[in-house]
Amino acid sequence: MSIKGWRGRLLVVDLSQRLFKTVELSSRLLKAYIGGRGLGVKIVYDHTPRRVDAYHPDVPLIFAVGPLTATPFYSTARFCVISKSPLTGTLFDSSCGGELGLELKKAGFDALMVKGSSKSLVSLVIDDEDFLIKDAEGLRGYTTKATREALRKDYGEEFKVACIGPAGENMVRMASINSDEGHVAGRGGLGAVMGAKGLKALVVRGSKPLEVADEKGIRELNRLVLKRIKSNPITGKALPGLGTLFLLQVVNEHGMLPSRNFKNTSFDEAYKISAELFKAKLFKRRKGCFNCPIACKRVVNLKGEEHPQPEFETTWALGALCEVASPEALVELNSLCNDLGIDTISMGSTLACAMELSEEGLLDTRVTWGDVEAMKELIADTAHRRGLGRTLAEGSKKMAERLSRPELSMSVKGLELPAYDPRGAYGQALAYATSNRGGCHLRAYMISTELLGVPILLDRLNPIGKAELVAYYENFLAAIDSLIVCKFLSLELDDNIFASALRMATGGLFTRAELIKAGERIWNLERLFNLEEGFTSSHDTLPERILSSPGAPPLQAMLEKYYEVRGWNRAGKPIEAKLEELGLPGERITM
Amino acid sequence: MSIKGWRGRLLVVDLSQRLFKTVELSSRLLKAYIGGRGLGVKIVYDHTPRRVDAYHPDVPLIFAVGPLTATPFYSTARFCVISKSPLTGTLFDSSCGGELGLELKKAGFDALMVKGSSKSLVSLVIDDEDFLIKDAEGLRGYTTKATREALRKDYGEEFKVACIGPAGENMVRMASINSDEGHVAGRGGLGAVMGAKGLKALVVRGSKPLEVADEKGIRELNRLVLKRIKSNPITGKALPGLGTLFLLQVVNEHGMLPSRNFKNTSFDEAYKISAELFKAKLFKRRKGCFNCPIACKRVVNLKGEEHPQPEFETTWALGALCEVASPEALVELNSLCNDLGIDTISMGSTLACAMELSEEGLLDTRVTWGDVEAMKELIADTAHRRGLGRTLAEGSKKMAERLSRPELSMSVKGLELPAYDPRGAYGQALAYATSNRGGCHLRAYMISTELLGVPILLDRLNPIGKAELVAYYENFLAAIDSLIVCKFLSLELDDNIFASALRMATGGLFTRAELIKAGERIWNLERLFNLEEGFTSSHDTLPERILSSPGAPPLQAMLEKYYEVRGWNRAGKPIEAKLEELGLPGERITM
Repeated sequence: MSIKGWRGRLLVVDLSQRLFKTVELSSRLLKAYIGGRGLGVKIVYDHTPRRVDAYHPDVPLIFAVGPLTATPFYSTARFCVISKSPLTGTLFDSSCGGELGLELKKAGFDALMVKGSSKSLVSLVIDDEDFLIKDAEGLRGYTTKATREALRKDYGEEFKVACIGPAGENMVRMASINSDEGHVAGRGGLGAVMGAKGLKALVVRGSKPLEVADEKGIRELNRLVLKRIKSNPITGKALPGLGTLFLLQVVNEHGMLPSRNFKNTSFDEAYKISAELFKAKLFKRRKGCFNCPIACKRVVNLKGEEHPQPEFETTWALGALCEVASPEALVELNSLCNDLGIDTISMGSTLACAMELSEEGLLDTRVTWGDVEAMKELIADTAHRRGLGRTLAEGSKKMAERLSRPELSMSVKGLELPAYDPRGAYGQALAYATSNRGGCHLRAYMISTELLGVPILLDRLNPIGKAELVAYYENFLAAIDSLIVCKFLSLELDDNIFASALRMATGGLFTRAELIKAGERIWNLERLFNLEEGFTSSHDTLPERILSSPGAPPLQAMLEKYYEVRGWNRAGKPIEAKLEELGLPGERITM
Repeated sequence: MSIKGWRGRLLVVDLSQRLFKTVELSSRLLKAYIGGRGLGVKIVYDHTPRRVDAYHPDVPLIFAVGPLTATPFYSTARFCVISKSPLTGTLFDSSCGGELGLELKKAGFDALMVKGSSKSLVSLVIDDEDFLIKDAEGLRGYTTKATREALRKDYGEEFKVACIGPAGENMVRMASINSDEGHVAGRGGLGAVMGAKGLKALVVRGSKPLEVADEKGIRELNRLVLKRIKSNPITGKALPGLGTLFLLQVVNEHGMLPSRNFKNTSFDEAYKISAELFKAKLFKRRKGCFNCPIACKRVVNLKGEEHPQPEFETTWALGALCEVASPEALVELNSLCNDLGIDTISMGSTLACAMELSEEGLLDTRVTWGDVEAMKELIADTAHRRGLGRTLAEGSKKMAERLSRPELSMSVKGLELPAYDPRGAYGQALAYATSNRGGCHLRAYMISTELLGVPILLDRLNPIGKAELVAYYENFLAAIDSLIVCKFLSLELDDNIFASALRMATGGLFTRAELIKAGERIWNLERLFNLEEGFTSSHDTLPERILSSPGAPPLQAMLEKYYEVRGWNRAGKPIEAKLEELGLPGERITM
């Protein structure tokens, strides 16, 4: 397959009618949206009926790769899942490592659009240009691990799998889509969308050689990239040496690691679940995505079995937030969530919310801080929607609202907040509030500048200049998610490098300014979708517990500045001139 | 005792003649040199014959406290020891925590000057205005711990002790002076000067109430200080939570933790001796100096016995640098050095140098990387000057020179470098080269700005602006050592706070500019002493291994800039106008 001239192909699958169709994508469309997240966002914006449930059969579920996927450029073995979230009701994208993206690209596709729904559980098999919808009722109730193993046994190791577990089948609003072991599109409950479509698994193999416009150029660029990645303390030492978990102690030491459902901003026992302890007690071997010089993953050994090491966010959510301080317990809780197909952040935060509700006497079931065995049971109950699990399966926002204590859900737009306490970093606080997909640290990872000193350390507790930076990072990272490159590269590399890589991959002219502009276009289109769904500026906020704390971030003032920087009016809507500048909403993709 | 009007008193003890004398110090002198290190430097400059051995009886040994010692201002329970170093031949000051400083101040003295030497081993007892020279031959060979215990048994718990162990008695050039458990004036071999004077121990009790000019003001200032100290991630979380050892992983992740005698710039097994592992495996309780809100010390439990937790520098020098990766072994090695009275940094670096010399076949004795049992024997042999220990006792510089491999001593001006690899921080590299006492990180702790982001993160590998900053920090920290305040406070507090505290303590007018100017005066007087001792700009350098590495700091260019910033000529000598501006060398203190 040649991608010279930067053209792309979309595979459309209608599960209701069991029909397949391929659609050619114009280079004009790709230049405007790049690929990956941007392409998925455009398809979802164009082809989703408004104000329907995320489980409606007409809501499309997109799996997308980008122009850099499967090129020799480092750290591009990723794919992106885009749809409407059953947890937040917003447009939602979730990124995943592992090798399925490579296969999809080598099968000749830039994206797969799944629409309709199947009455019985099915698998979708893509083997280059052969497409099959196969019965998967025999896999019902299988864990993600068992599903992966069964499918690999049926189809062979060359096929890569993305699948759901019981939680996705039961449309748990925080259900994940799991690919290779430890590689998860976790957030936003897109696994439940897959479940609503009756799609248990996606099974892909691609065998077409990939041509890039300037392969030698990319390999030379890689040499520079490698040198910079190795020289940066985060990407060169901390991540390869300890995994994402290195962050736990750093964040705790800055008083930014929430514990006890955000009642506290640090966790006294954090050192017990630090990366150093995991390494000393459980480490087995390092693991990385294909062609990645960072290789931040690790495999641990627990009772003679291999498990993925819990990521930083997981260790925080199921650990510090619920007051669990045992590495062994966290490995088990993490693998349980993975097997059942549940997002660990939302699960941990929803459990912490339940613990606080229980402490206040508002639950029939008693749930105690740090009770690991009870947590295991509740996670299984959530996946199967049993007992209290039926309530947990709705996420912390709906649960807390149902019990008339909405302020105990530590979420934004229904998405449970991640590990960085917004009281400790005002830029990150603004990023949480403005995130199009809800409480997320990866739309604008302000921690890089507010904590890690990359590219320069700014005062965490000073709002000045933060609105501009948040908007810049939201645009930049939307582009990164569209290329697709792992965000960790962006801790060291700037937009110029990525624009160069894109030119070399596609042969097209593409400047760094166009890259950022594409990111801005994607961001604004996501915003338009959300506005059309009924979201308003009142949803750009933070939990009451944060806003009423001493030293709370001055959110209102930062928001006003942010809207101004964005070219939005005071109601948070893009003004006409901004839409015109970005060519939005633009021509509808025809299929 | 009132220190209103900022007057001071010096106690002079002549051990040869067994005479005591008190000398009144003028407020003019104190305003120019503050106290502590500054006062000691001035006394040593004025009263040391030039170009004699540090063991010469006429070389004075000063124990000094400062105008803030024993006031209610936080973190001032320190004293400073100043003399000529037998290891470097430079003027040398070494700072120590613990409570002896408080007692000396409450006995009514700002400094103690010990001159002459006793033929038999003695203790010097100061009980307010009662001074005694007591026979201490019965303590010969006692460890510092046993000495402290014996003296406390004789005199009571109220008396605080500073003493030497076998290493000091045997004039090992890296012998330390040890005060309370884990509180050590470690560097530069001042314990050997004490040994040369036949002074086994100093025993002090003071009972006079201390009056400060504005006690209420200091207590109000403390409230602000406490708030700032608590809000700073280093002083508020990392140091109280993990001790200085928190730095180990941070520094390693930046590729700045030398291992194998600086052959490598990181240590793969660093996580095994990380603060988190010490805490999980050995932690018993926290410990701090008197009236310190940081309390960075910790006590660990090993085989049922209490030991001080090794500091970061110790863990690095006896650990990473010698490739030892066991917390238990490091606790034992540290306590062994403490008991024998040996500086852990110089000992670790000298052992690492011996390991490399052995690897090259240049030693008769085989010394292997990471051989803990051999290290224990060699440390004991060093303290007692036995076998290979006779050579080690001279320090790495003399040892490597003797074996014709001077480049294997990782030292500057004969002082073994500390844990921050100068190849990874150009400002710190310049600070090592220009330090008046040789390879030291505490003359200008550039790591705060080059690694910790305090007060702002600067590019570690960019020389621009570093000369100015190094000179500023050298001046600032000379003032801090003279006040005396713990340097950790200066990670959060600026010169204005300290000038305020000084005004409140003394009632005198004193601006922040005068504080920095006093620091500059002290620095230049130290430099004059060294120049008069034969040091030249050629000694402002770094080990060949550093300078010949790829990515070596551009030392020559930075040095030229530094001399210019300092108002020194190209030979590194202060120009006349600079000396005049600072009033140097100034009137001799008469006694």
